[in-house]
Formats: sequence, C-alpha cells, structure tokens
Amino acid sequence: METMVSSASKQVTIGDQRPTVLIGERINPTGKKKLTAALQEGDLTLVREEATAQVKAGADILDVNVGVPGLDEVTLLPQAVQAVMEVVAAPICIDSSNVKALEAALQVYQGKALVNSVNGEERSLASVLPVVKQYGAAVIGLTMDEKGIPPTADKRLAVAQKIVEKAESVGIPREDVIIDCLALTVGADATAGMTTIETIRKVKAELGANITLGVSNISFGMPDRELLNSVFLAIAIAAGLNCPVVDAAKVRAAVLAADLSLGRDPNATRYIRGFRQRQKG
Amino acid sequence: METMVSSASKQVTIGDQRPTVLIGERINPTGKKKLTAALQEGDLTLVREEATAQVKAGADILDVNVGVPGLDEVTLLPQAVQAVMEVVAAPICIDSSNVKALEAALQVYQGKALVNSVNGEERSLASVLPVVKQYGAAVIGLTMDEKGIPPTADKRLAVAQKIVEKAESVGIPREDVIIDCLALTVGADATAGMTTIETIRKVKAELGANITLGVSNISFGMPDRELLNSVFLAIAIAAGLNCPVVDAAKVRAAVLAADLSLGRDPNATRYIRGFRQRQKG
Repeated sequence: METMVSSASKQVTIGDQRPTVLIGERINPTGKKKLTAALQEGDLTLVREEATAQVKAGADILDVNVGVPGLDEVTLLPQAVQAVMEVVAAPICIDSSNVKALEAALQVYQGKALVNSVNGEERSLASVLPVVKQYGAAVIGLTMDEKGIPPTADKRLAVAQKIVEKAESVGIPREDVIIDCLALTVGADATAGMTTIETIRKVKAELGANITLGVSNISFGMPDRELLNSVFLAIAIAAGLNCPVVDAAKVRAAVLAADLSLGRDPNATRYIRGFRQRQKG
Repeated sequence: METMVSSASKQVTIGDQRPTVLIGERINPTGKKKLTAALQEGDLTLVREEATAQVKAGADILDVNVGVPGLDEVTLLPQAVQAVMEVVAAPICIDSSNVKALEAALQVYQGKALVNSVNGEERSLASVLPVVKQYGAAVIGLTMDEKGIPPTADKRLAVAQKIVEKAESVGIPREDVIIDCLALTVGADATAGMTTIETIRKVKAELGANITLGVSNISFGMPDRELLNSVFLAIAIAAGLNCPVVDAAKVRAAVLAADLSLGRDPNATRYIRGFRQRQKG
C-alpha cells in the first residue's frame, strides 16, 4: 500500500518496499523557548530557517505545528505553512488539534498535504475526517481514544481499525490513513517499547496501512537518548514503520543503515551518499 | 528454548526472553598481526589480555580461535583455552575447523563448552557431532554445506533443519544446537542483510532454535561500519538473534538499547548500568 503526498513541485511516496520517509519534527514550539517567543511576535524567520535546515539534514516531509497557548492558530498556521512553502519543496504535514486551523492551512496549501492528526475519539473522527476528505489530504490516525492510549497492542490495533473504517466511510481511501502506533517512555514501563513494536507488526499485518511514530518519547528520562532513539527506530522500521516523525539531523544516519540492512537501498547508494554528506558537515 | 553453557564457576543461559548474550570475537588471529605473531611464539599474554578486556567490555562468553596456518592447533588450542580459564569466569566458545583440536580443547575445558562449529556438510556432521555429544557440549551450526552459503533464507533454513535433525539423531538435544544464520556484506549484494534477517525469522519460527551470527561481515567494504553493524545487530536481535559473535566494546551499547526497546531489561537496569560504565571509561 502506498501513500502519496505532495507540494506544488514535489511528490513523496510512502510504502513498505521504499526507503523510510522522514517527517521533520522541529517546527513545533513545544519545549522550544526561542521558537515560542518568535511565534508570539508573529516572526516566522525561525520557521523558515528550521525548514531549510531540516531538508538539508534529510527530512522528506516537514511537520508544521505552531500551537502556543494564547496564540490564534487559525491565523498563524496558514502563515507558517506559507512560509515553509516559500523556502522548501518538501511536502508539509499540517499539525494542529484545532480543526479550524487545519482547515485554514489546507486552504492555502498547494499540493496534497498530510494532516496531523485524527484519533479514535468520536468527536475527533467527526470533525477532522470531513475536512481531510474535502481537501483530498492524507491523515495521521493516532491509536488513542476517549480512554487515552491503550496499554496493549491489540487495543491500539482496534482503535486503528476504527479510524481506517471511519475514514473509508467518508470516502478517504485506506492508503491515505497513516497510523501512529504511539511510543511511551521505557523509563516508566520497560515493556513500552515492545508494546509499540507489536502494535506496528499487528497494524501492518491486519490493516496493511502505512505507519508513523514520534520516536523520541521512547527515551524520555533515559540517558544516551540519541542511541536509544536510533536503535528503537531501526527495530521499528524493520517491524513496519514507514515514516517516523524525527529530528532528521540526529537519526538519519541510523535510518539509512536500517534501510540498507533491510534491502531497500540498491547498491548502497543512499547510505554512501549520506555518509559523504555527514563528512562534509 | 534455552541453551545453557558454563565454565567451572559460571552459567550463561541463552533464550528469547532473556537479555542478548554477547560472544566476544577478539581472540582470533585472522587479520590481527600482533596476535598472530604472539601465537607463533607460543606467547599467550595477549590472549589473556583480550579475555580480560572483553569481559570488562561486557562479553558473556569468549570465542577462542588460534587458527594460524602452520601452527599446531591440537597443542595450542587447549593451551589458549587453559589461559582464558585462568583469567576469567566467562564460559568459552571453542572455535576451530580442526576436530582433533576441538577434542583436545574439550578435554581440558571445565564446564559445558560451546563448540564453533559444525556445518551442513556430511563430513562435518559426521566428525564434529560425535565429539560434541561425547563431551556434553553445545554446538554452533553454520547454515552452509558442500555448495557453500545458500543465497536464500529457505535454503539456509533447510541446512539448519538438517543440522538439528542430525544432532538429535546422535543424542544432542535441540536446545544445544545454536544456528548461525550467516551474514554476507551488503556491499556486494544489497539484499544480503534482508536474507539474513529472513533466515533468522524462519529458523526461529520453524525450529525454535537459538541463533547466533557474526555480525561484522555485513558492513565489509562500507563506510561507517560501526553504525551499520550496530543498526543491523538491533534489527537482527528483534528478529530472533540471541547470541551474536561481536566486539563487545564496540556494540554493547546498541545491544543494551535493543534489549531495552524489546522489553528484556526490567527497570532499564542493565541499560543504565551500561551507560554509567561507559562514562567511567
């Protein structure tokens, strides 16, 4: 199953036989004081800089999130999306929990966007999916619902199933629903990583859907986070993860090594090119 | 299925629900001029030093190989095994293609050794397995035969099946046969990594046997070998690899991260302890 997203000038295709697609996570003010302050002043310079830097570091799609308490996302999100479109060709993952902001950003977006996100709550499904359908976008479905994040892989699979069925019922094809299997920190529960890996395997086997994941949660509170993130990411890719949400500068080397290990890099071309790019710095 | 090996004072158990067991690869003269020269002079100081250093770096079992063209392994291998037993408690993996040398080393070994190796050739099966049985050892079975290393996972599985059946027919229980799924370099064939991963999955699913692998071959001729080895190793562990043959100093951090990702490290105890040991240096 392949998911295509695009900008005005570039297509990115996500699928099991293809190299892993990286969704750059850095245009997001959560935990970033400088970016938060800039957004509060309506200054999008940092957003443009992060966009350019992430594409240079190997991001294929850019997540754009401007959620700062007190700020008007309905105005700011389309401006940020516009700013990113001006500086890079990478397709955008429009990221907000505010449906009006998603809609405003989809109106200005040129291409087929990825929307981040819908989840298994009835309210979310009812409000987000029609907008995704209207703009012909693809959407990320989080495997959580009214009761929070299910503790088992089977329950997360059930939420994924519900999201895919609901999307199909409003006319969104299954290939345009990318399931986020969710990662919690192994610091709180040592089985958290395995639960996510099992969810990935089951969603892939049962639904055939493409899969995303915000990987860095896994290592919250642990030492040597970059190592743990990279190793977990490699295992998740082998299990069926197609398009993780990551800091490309930090994990791309490991992702290229995983793709090479899994036979998705003929002649090791991307691995060797990535190595040379890192050497140049 | 669990495989137990031991020294006079220490047991090591290999199994799917347990942390990955590292077999230290460094007592092997192949490609090591200094060690080759020392062995030619009958000097085992370096062997002792490597034994101590590897255990400090986290090796659980030590492979001991003294194969140098022209040297009498039947005399030297038991001496090297004796030297290692004197300085560390880790069980030994006795490594030779010379059956007489294996037998001589097994005679002096105290504990239940791992023998490296038998393969699918009739001559190998007929000469090695009776010795393994006689000394109550465990044995590594290489998935290759008269025709070399099979290019597909199914054919490697067939060789593994043959080894396990032959072992059982001479009275060696299945849990005492550890299958080496063999890794070839991705530099020559970009599907080589995936073939090994598929072999691991199939051998685990069909035979339930524990699995070993010499990982470093995978990256031969590639840049950034340590990264590629670590990432491939993590993927292989998630697929079912239990006891890789490695340079523990180079890959242990990634292996601890893989075990933590896979829920085999309650409370992240080993991961955090490993981090602290690396910080102390």
